[in-house]
Amino acid sequence: MIDRPKPILKLRRLGIDTYKEAVIYMRKDCHVCRAEGFEVQARVRVSLNGKALTATLNMIRNGMLEAGEAGLSEHAWEKLGAKEGDEIYISHLPPVHSLSHMRSKIYGHALEADQMDSIINDIVAGNYSDIHISSFLTACAGGRLSGEEIVSLTHAMVDSGDRLDWGKDLVVDKHCVGGLPGNRTTPIVVAIVSAFGLTMPKTSSRAITSPAGTADTVEVLAPVNLDVPAMRKVVETEGGCIVWGGAASLSPADDVLIRVEKALDLDSEGQLVASVLSKKIAAGSSHVLIDVPVGLTAKVRSMEMAEILARYLEQTGAALGVGVRVHTSDGSQPVGRGIGPALEARDLLSVLKNENAAPQDLRERALDLAGHILEFSPDVKNGQGRTLATEILDDGKAWVKFQSICEAQGGMRDVPKAPYTHVVAADRGGLVADIDNRRIARVAKLAGAPADKVAGVDLHTPVGANIEKDQPLFTVHAESPGELDYALGYLEEQDDIIKIEEV
Amino acid sequence: MIDRPKPILKLRRLGIDTYKEAVIYMRKDCHVCRAEGFEVQARVRVSLNGKALTATLNMIRNGMLEAGEAGLSEHAWEKLGAKEGDEIYISHLPPVHSLSHMRSKIYGHALEADQMDSIINDIVAGNYSDIHISSFLTACAGGRLSGEEIVSLTHAMVDSGDRLDWGKDLVVDKHCVGGLPGNRTTPIVVAIVSAFGLTMPKTSSRAITSPAGTADTVEVLAPVNLDVPAMRKVVETEGGCIVWGGAASLSPADDVLIRVEKALDLDSEGQLVASVLSKKIAAGSSHVLIDVPVGLTAKVRSMEMAEILARYLEQTGAALGVGVRVHTSDGSQPVGRGIGPALEARDLLSVLKNENAAPQDLRERALDLAGHILEFSPDVKNGQGRTLATEILDDGKAWVKFQSICEAQGGMRDVPKAPYTHVVAADRGGLVADIDNRRIARVAKLAGAPADKVAGVDLHTPVGANIEKDQPLFTVHAESPGELDYALGYLEEQDDIIKIEEV
Repeated sequence: MIDRPKPILKLRRLGIDTYKEAVIYMRKDCHVCRAEGFEVQARVRVSLNGKALTATLNMIRNGMLEAGEAGLSEHAWEKLGAKEGDEIYISHLPPVHSLSHMRSKIYGHALEADQMDSIINDIVAGNYSDIHISSFLTACAGGRLSGEEIVSLTHAMVDSGDRLDWGKDLVVDKHCVGGLPGNRTTPIVVAIVSAFGLTMPKTSSRAITSPAGTADTVEVLAPVNLDVPAMRKVVETEGGCIVWGGAASLSPADDVLIRVEKALDLDSEGQLVASVLSKKIAAGSSHVLIDVPVGLTAKVRSMEMAEILARYLEQTGAALGVGVRVHTSDGSQPVGRGIGPALEARDLLSVLKNENAAPQDLRERALDLAGHILEFSPDVKNGQGRTLATEILDDGKAWVKFQSICEAQGGMRDVPKAPYTHVVAADRGGLVADIDNRRIARVAKLAGAPADKVAGVDLHTPVGANIEKDQPLFTVHAESPGELDYALGYLEEQDDIIKIEEV
Repeated sequence: MIDRPKPILKLRRLGIDTYKEAVIYMRKDCHVCRAEGFEVQARVRVSLNGKALTATLNMIRNGMLEAGEAGLSEHAWEKLGAKEGDEIYISHLPPVHSLSHMRSKIYGHALEADQMDSIINDIVAGNYSDIHISSFLTACAGGRLSGEEIVSLTHAMVDSGDRLDWGKDLVVDKHCVGGLPGNRTTPIVVAIVSAFGLTMPKTSSRAITSPAGTADTVEVLAPVNLDVPAMRKVVETEGGCIVWGGAASLSPADDVLIRVEKALDLDSEGQLVASVLSKKIAAGSSHVLIDVPVGLTAKVRSMEMAEILARYLEQTGAALGVGVRVHTSDGSQPVGRGIGPALEARDLLSVLKNENAAPQDLRERALDLAGHILEFSPDVKNGQGRTLATEILDDGKAWVKFQSICEAQGGMRDVPKAPYTHVVAADRGGLVADIDNRRIARVAKLAGAPADKVAGVDLHTPVGANIEKDQPLFTVHAESPGELDYALGYLEEQDDIIKIEEV
């Protein structure tokens, strides 16, 4: 065997954050590039400490790296557990066989279960670039996944990570197919359902593109960054919890796929079904209620779309041995009054405490959902769930349960208030005809939500209200004057986020 | 109007080469990220000197940038004509409307001509990320483009760049649908055809994944980096030229799409037809001959695939007013003897000079193609082209013409020789049954081709030859002992790149 120069380079930390993309930075003139024939943008294998990942090669042309050195993007650095000066081994990428299955799907052939497994495994292992993932998602979109393929995709995604087991036959969960600002029913539902005695170990996400995720909102009131053992302890004593799902490795394939779907702004039913159900099944649920708000500026825009989605969800759930019930709801306007973590937390507390001023739409929605979930219990007859849920909320049991869950998660906190606010008033009188969910959410984000917990928008007039000229429409909340100005600057450029019609 | 902080940063050159991806590097804590709410991997608009482009945002976490500074990838730096210390303006990306057409295609709707135009225009303007381009290519692959869509895609790609006009009715061209090492007929064909008196302004590509492109090979013999005015001068005096097409902006959309197609390893007929014809039409051709080598390790693997492709090429050509003729040829083994720029240049010179040792397969292929092209002329009857081509080659007119083209392009050069060579001999006697096109090309690349002109592989035994044990099979050529060792190291790991069967 002829000796070849060893493809080893010494690491220097460059501190470049590329989000979840693994990038390796090497000098164009380095001995590894020359010997291995690597070109810029090549996908290469990087090994260190017995771990390995696939990275995209970027070339450094100037003195940022010394001869014999390489850099890694922060994501790759952390994944490999690298330290300054560590020696990494760089090699050609072994062929990714599942890409041929993907190409076969592009040419219209259905994917077998084992082919779907190998694609998802390669995606989780980081063997697909974003270009490959985008192609896979596109090949599966537009109704090109059969019912069987959706089942095998969901299976493969569950198998790609850990799966929790609560040692019970009945473990309930809920999920909302997004798109509605302020729709923070989950903490109320968990309080009611676990006060009744069902097991509801709820993991929630943080906001990705919205002004607040459930995890962001609950974090205003209690810690949510619990690992699986800590979560288990809360559920054992309280029956329910509301924690951030990111600490557990549940359906990690979903996180990768969602990132690329967002860039494509593509929501295919098949991916959506697999995404939702794989997370719930991995979290150990036996019964799942899925809330689908339907409205022109919500994610699901028509009842027809909602029905197709419901059928896929129920069929896939049945194939995977999970009871799925789909509930459609009004998605025409924001729910509650606040948009943003602290404002939404204020709203849900007000419902739990049965305050007179509590937003009734949030209360009614939470009761609808809790009622359906209670009916998963063999002890609750169909049609009785909502009455039962109302009793548990009205007599204060839900509020007591919510406080003990918060204490069990690490201690309950007060809701903070924004130091800077600005009231936006109506420029004419009339009927509030429409509130644009997407643009009002954007105002809340520009004001600093969800990173600033207190930032957001507080709505004062629901759709259908009659208002006078100069009556307050909403208040923008921010943590700094700069951010407040920034949100107001955007507002000045917008017409009719809240549409007022002459009566 | 409320004052907002100006989204301006000062440029520092970081020297990071990301190939053709535009990346902007900003500090996480910079005032622009905070004010505009930019997240890592966001797509943002960067403006300088009246130019603008869309870039992907990477965050810098350590001291590589000072407060108020930003960096750009080299591609973006060059495209904006940036200088150290220039002030760039960063803004949100305006919505890319054509993405909705792309999504509509994903959902199975045919694209109208104006929708195709807007997609291609946005791709050329850099408004699509690689994720978007991958999705567009996938949505169009697998036979999902109709004949009409292929026509409008080709139209849109032609319109995306410049279009040359030679002021003549008959302008001929050829193209080979790749995949066959050593198949360097073009320079011979151009010499014969322009010696006859036809206009053949040939632009060729450099190698992308092969050991040599036509431009790399011709560059061994004469300069090929001619701009359009220089090319025009050569064609006016000589009738033909053989230059690198990269200097002219012909079908720039094609260059972007091909880069992502390579990463996907996806060749759909529709894209291939649009890619080939858009380049030829933009180059001002009226008649195009397309050579399609068919073989198990060539790009087109069956006659059936070749026929489908031929039909699309001819129909699309007809719709765009260009005469297209498709010629299928044997794609079962490499052509000529040499693989790599200098070795291929040696082979084609030997054919042009009518040397006894000239590779006959290269000669015969060049005559086939030149014969077909001559028949595009109204003065040549069908069936007479090949005889005419043979006369022009045999009586030395083609060789004289080739030399004057080389002189007109900047001066003819001698073929250099490799300082390091290694002969690989047969480990047993028998019949040469097969040569693996793809792996023998890889050996040539590992030896340094095409960057090192002298590097490559010289084949000594064609398929069908009877050989003795220890008889030389091929010689590896390299410019340095390290690269020679590297190619030999790969060879040691391979079985049967040249398959020898017992007789």
